[in-house]
Amino acid sequence: MQTFFILSFLTSILAFLFALYLYLWVKRQKVVNGEIDRISLLIKKGADTFIAREYRLLGMFAGVVALLILVLFPSPIWSGRPVDNIMTAVAYLAGTALSALAGKIGILVATLSNGRCAESAQNGLKDAFLVGFRGGAVMGLLVVGCCLFGVAAVLMIAGDTSVLLGFSFGASSLALFAKAGGGIFTKTADVSADLTGKVELGIAEDDPRNPAVIADNVGDNVGDVAGMGADLFDSNVAAMTSALVIAQGLAMPGLAAMEMVLCYSLLGLFASIIGIATARVGKDGNPTRALNSSTYVTTAIFLALTAGATVLFEGFSWRIWLSSATGLIVGLVIGLTTDYFTDDTKPIVKRVAHASASGPAFTILSGTSYGFISCLPAMVGIALSALISYQLCAPMGDGCAIFGIAMSAVGMLSIVGMIISNDAYGPIVDNARGLAEMGGLGEDTIRTADELDSAGNTVKAVTKGFSIGAAGLTVISLLGAFMSETNVALAQLGKEAITGFDIMDPTVFFGLLVGASIPAVFSAMLILGVDKNAQRMVAEIHRQFDTIVGLKEGKADPDYSKCIDIATRGALRELIPAGMVAIVTTLLVGFIAGPAAIGGFLVGNIVSGLLLALFMSNAGGLWDNSKKYVESGAEGGKGSDAHKAAVIGDTVGDPYKDTAGPSINTQITVVSLVASLASALFASFSLFG
Amino acid sequence: MQTFFILSFLTSILAFLFALYLYLWVKRQKVVNGEIDRISLLIKKGADTFIAREYRLLGMFAGVVALLILVLFPSPIWSGRPVDNIMTAVAYLAGTALSALAGKIGILVATLSNGRCAESAQNGLKDAFLVGFRGGAVMGLLVVGCCLFGVAAVLMIAGDTSVLLGFSFGASSLALFAKAGGGIFTKTADVSADLTGKVELGIAEDDPRNPAVIADNVGDNVGDVAGMGADLFDSNVAAMTSALVIAQGLAMPGLAAMEMVLCYSLLGLFASIIGIATARVGKDGNPTRALNSSTYVTTAIFLALTAGATVLFEGFSWRIWLSSATGLIVGLVIGLTTDYFTDDTKPIVKRVAHASASGPAFTILSGTSYGFISCLPAMVGIALSALISYQLCAPMGDGCAIFGIAMSAVGMLSIVGMIISNDAYGPIVDNARGLAEMGGLGEDTIRTADELDSAGNTVKAVTKGFSIGAAGLTVISLLGAFMSETNVALAQLGKEAITGFDIMDPTVFFGLLVGASIPAVFSAMLILGVDKNAQRMVAEIHRQFDTIVGLKEGKADPDYSKCIDIATRGALRELIPAGMVAIVTTLLVGFIAGPAAIGGFLVGNIVSGLLLALFMSNAGGLWDNSKKYVESGAEGGKGSDAHKAAVIGDTVGDPYKDTAGPSINTQITVVSLVASLASALFASFSLFG
Repeated sequence: MQTFFILSFLTSILAFLFALYLYLWVKRQKVVNGEIDRISLLIKKGADTFIAREYRLLGMFAGVVALLILVLFPSPIWSGRPVDNIMTAVAYLAGTALSALAGKIGILVATLSNGRCAESAQNGLKDAFLVGFRGGAVMGLLVVGCCLFGVAAVLMIAGDTSVLLGFSFGASSLALFAKAGGGIFTKTADVSADLTGKVELGIAEDDPRNPAVIADNVGDNVGDVAGMGADLFDSNVAAMTSALVIAQGLAMPGLAAMEMVLCYSLLGLFASIIGIATARVGKDGNPTRALNSSTYVTTAIFLALTAGATVLFEGFSWRIWLSSATGLIVGLVIGLTTDYFTDDTKPIVKRVAHASASGPAFTILSGTSYGFISCLPAMVGIALSALISYQLCAPMGDGCAIFGIAMSAVGMLSIVGMIISNDAYGPIVDNARGLAEMGGLGEDTIRTADELDSAGNTVKAVTKGFSIGAAGLTVISLLGAFMSETNVALAQLGKEAITGFDIMDPTVFFGLLVGASIPAVFSAMLILGVDKNAQRMVAEIHRQFDTIVGLKEGKADPDYSKCIDIATRGALRELIPAGMVAIVTTLLVGFIAGPAAIGGFLVGNIVSGLLLALFMSNAGGLWDNSKKYVESGAEGGKGSDAHKAAVIGDTVGDPYKDTAGPSINTQITVVSLVASLASALFASFSLFG
Repeated sequence: MQTFFILSFLTSILAFLFALYLYLWVKRQKVVNGEIDRISLLIKKGADTFIAREYRLLGMFAGVVALLILVLFPSPIWSGRPVDNIMTAVAYLAGTALSALAGKIGILVATLSNGRCAESAQNGLKDAFLVGFRGGAVMGLLVVGCCLFGVAAVLMIAGDTSVLLGFSFGASSLALFAKAGGGIFTKTADVSADLTGKVELGIAEDDPRNPAVIADNVGDNVGDVAGMGADLFDSNVAAMTSALVIAQGLAMPGLAAMEMVLCYSLLGLFASIIGIATARVGKDGNPTRALNSSTYVTTAIFLALTAGATVLFEGFSWRIWLSSATGLIVGLVIGLTTDYFTDDTKPIVKRVAHASASGPAFTILSGTSYGFISCLPAMVGIALSALISYQLCAPMGDGCAIFGIAMSAVGMLSIVGMIISNDAYGPIVDNARGLAEMGGLGEDTIRTADELDSAGNTVKAVTKGFSIGAAGLTVISLLGAFMSETNVALAQLGKEAITGFDIMDPTVFFGLLVGASIPAVFSAMLILGVDKNAQRMVAEIHRQFDTIVGLKEGKADPDYSKCIDIATRGALRELIPAGMVAIVTTLLVGFIAGPAAIGGFLVGNIVSGLLLALFMSNAGGLWDNSKKYVESGAEGGKGSDAHKAAVIGDTVGDPYKDTAGPSINTQITVVSLVASLASALFASFSLFG
């Protein structure tokens, strides 16, 4: 084990050093244009302000939760094992801090890279791609490095995996709020800017006369970069945690279960480093292909390295290798089917664009329908991946089957460093496109930036499918973790162990139905948050155009900060209630109906959460690209009725895909972790359990 | 038992006679206005044509299925019990025939009542209400009478409840297609008529110049009357069947389980007869209140009568009475919460109307969000009802708990005669309103008809919540029926019995994820059917306005039949694939992964099916009433931007609430019945089961 701790630390440090090198490389790129410099500073200031206020709020929240943990979890402090409580509380705080750090650094690099990327777009695709991609890669490397380092450190110091649950809960509770808050911020601004700018005034997307334009660009950073970073940090930690918790419970001589978890994770990070280092695009190459091919390279390297490790190290198993490979390949397949439903060269996007010609109702109806259909392959994929890895590992012995599922999730998330790099690339080049327009860099540069941006959108669909699939597998294995934690508690109480959760038990069924409703309510609250907030911002934009003389003609500057302020205050107000609904309902169900109900609750939550997350992400991506497809000249092109309808579809899809959809991921993880952490409490006190 | 067979037949015959009396009463109302007569004849002809073509197609389908049943179900005919197969096949055909008959009679009465209702609206609310309500009541009495008669007859002749599964499958497979086909027809016409008429041309809803207006009225009959009738016939049969199958398996001396099922059902019908006979509205009374209060009267009578029966008959149990009362009361509560989310005197409708002032994207986003939130109380209600009746009946002995859940569903559906009457009232007065406008009966009459129509819409929300709740409980008890059928088959094969479905078993989990995707795919296919079909019809309406000289000015007649034809052909083309997806997936999962996977599949299907059905019904009702609220003058009233946005919301909601939402109900029932019927096959042949 010691070896793998050391290797984990070394790989993390290698990732940090490489990130530092890339950061310095990006920073060396020059900024000449004064306007771009001014605006990118405005964006940075807006993002910093929001993050500072958000983190202050979340800091207070984390403090309260840490106190609660100290007193109550994993068991009441008066029950005589205070060290466990202290360690769990500290691990919780470390988890929140690292997650916050990941978001903060992401914004730092992204706001540094966007202007540089815009300027280098003047020299063509090749350079600009590198700036955008390497900016994103700094984020990817740091997030995964922090994750590996953190998990290894907590495990080494605590010596017990149940403390890791606290660390993981810290990471995911922060991610829940960061994703929700950032998601509400970004979509408030995006929706308002589009509706007033594009639809009402007919001005371009990033026209500097629009008072919401800076808020929109700030949103890309706080929502897509910081929120997404926290989200994937959380998924990765949760996947490792659940695998380690189950591995510790195995006690199978001859199987180096915990070693494998660390080894696979560190090799994944190592493979991502190589993939990132080799990513390039030719002078007139295709950025989408470059991003995808580096993903495939990373996958191949990972598979080869882990196969090598299986040969080399004693106690490593080929069955586990196959499980993890299954997870990874299913992840890629889910990504590709997502791509089929959201890529504008494929038939579905064209059909929705065509339906738009009959009016916005048809845009909504057809997009909703294809969004629902798109869930099927991913759901079947996740189900198959769980089933295959279970069957592969069941012959190894008691409890190994569920460990197989956990390793399948670890496998799917192994290349997460690459995934985050690709994902963070998106908002950087999106910002760069805006800066190129606002800085007046000319048509050619904007076209180059557009091409980079479109690659970002396509790749985003793939990575989103990936992260939903990984979350699905992770929470399935967290279900196993919950059961083993509950059984530990039951054994201490002298009660009979749970062997499973029978659907025909009405307590389980009760939990199932309640759990299934939570993602619907949670996402509805987030969407309503965007809805309410955007209505306020639209009113403010109208006010500015009505009262600021010369704004429409471009002779006067709008008051950008007012819009940023509305988005900030709205996001901060809405993010806590939505997150609390999920956490509080879990505790309520557990304290009222006991562990069996929680088993059902978690499953209901996973099933409907996956369905809604896939639906919302895919439908949103579909509408976004249908709009772009119409804008490229189809169905009458810009300004046609089809375009107006497609813009409405895109506006509906925005909070689906960037606020609610990805937050559901985190919501299901948080709920699973809360359940595991509170399992001892549920086992001892529950009203009817 | 013999007594209850006789009582069931007598009550059914009483219902038939009362229906005949009401039918003759409606027929006696005079029709004077020639234009109304002409148009209502057009509607009748359109509906008859559609039904004839639909039934021909479904007849062929039923023939094929009956043959398959004959050869394969419940066990292959060569396995040596051919009588079972023959009886099941005959029962299947009887189920389809009675379901078809219910739809056919409903249309007959509805098309008879609509014109008469319009004309009597000239004399005021009181008379017109009675015509509309009694027309609906004919349908309600006949459907429930047929159900009770059919179930009692099949059970008496076959002497075994497993043949009832065939009868129930016949009823629900026909309902599935009738609901889907009718739903696609009605919304194709409705959406196209609204979009071209109201939005593009700014003419009134039922303006005779609109080529789709007759198709729209035909749709009310084939979708809302015939489809809804088949749907509730199916739910009622399924609830009785699952209760009887479980009751037969109980073999509990001293408990008259099967007798109770028949007794509760016949008392429910009896209570509905009294409720219908006493429904009245004063001269200036409130029709909504009249409809609701007769529902409450029926509920009270039912509870009193069943309490009396519990005292009177030996082997009846108060625990069962409480379970059934719980179901009924939870049904009412679900209806009331639905009302809260969809009534335009309550805050939610007003909020969505207010959001519409900011544009259609906000209409969609807020409606979707509240639709999702509205699922929570109903899901918790269904879960609680199942949990309470389980806990109530568990102390009675082995297997009684699940019988309690089944009786809770029977209780919820006991007043279904009243529910159908209220539900069928809706399309009758909706048609009457159209006829009053097209027949030129003047402003006052139209206003009266409008008032009746609005009551229909409000009550519809309540009855929809009711029928979804009942379907939920029914399929939970069908899960029990599936398990007991499977165990019979396993025992015959000498295999070990199933004691439950453990979520931690990855085969169950696999089924769960696949099952959860099916309602999403199924409803998407139906919505796409409407979407595609409406695009064709909109094109046809545009063509007519472009090519028929004088149509816009009202000097030339449109070609109504062309629109009816488009709706018919489209509906027939789309209804089979959607229904087949559900049936074929069930068989695939069963034959590949075996009974355990099917257990998970059914639960996944129930959970996501309930969630989506509630979401779609409620969001649709919410948008509909928001539009009406804006039309009543709020947010700028008719013609304002808010109105345009609200109309788009209503158009999206139409196929949600009238095509997909209510069809999901039937889909989950069909899947459960297919699973039960095929349980013996799954138990003996499955690839990995």
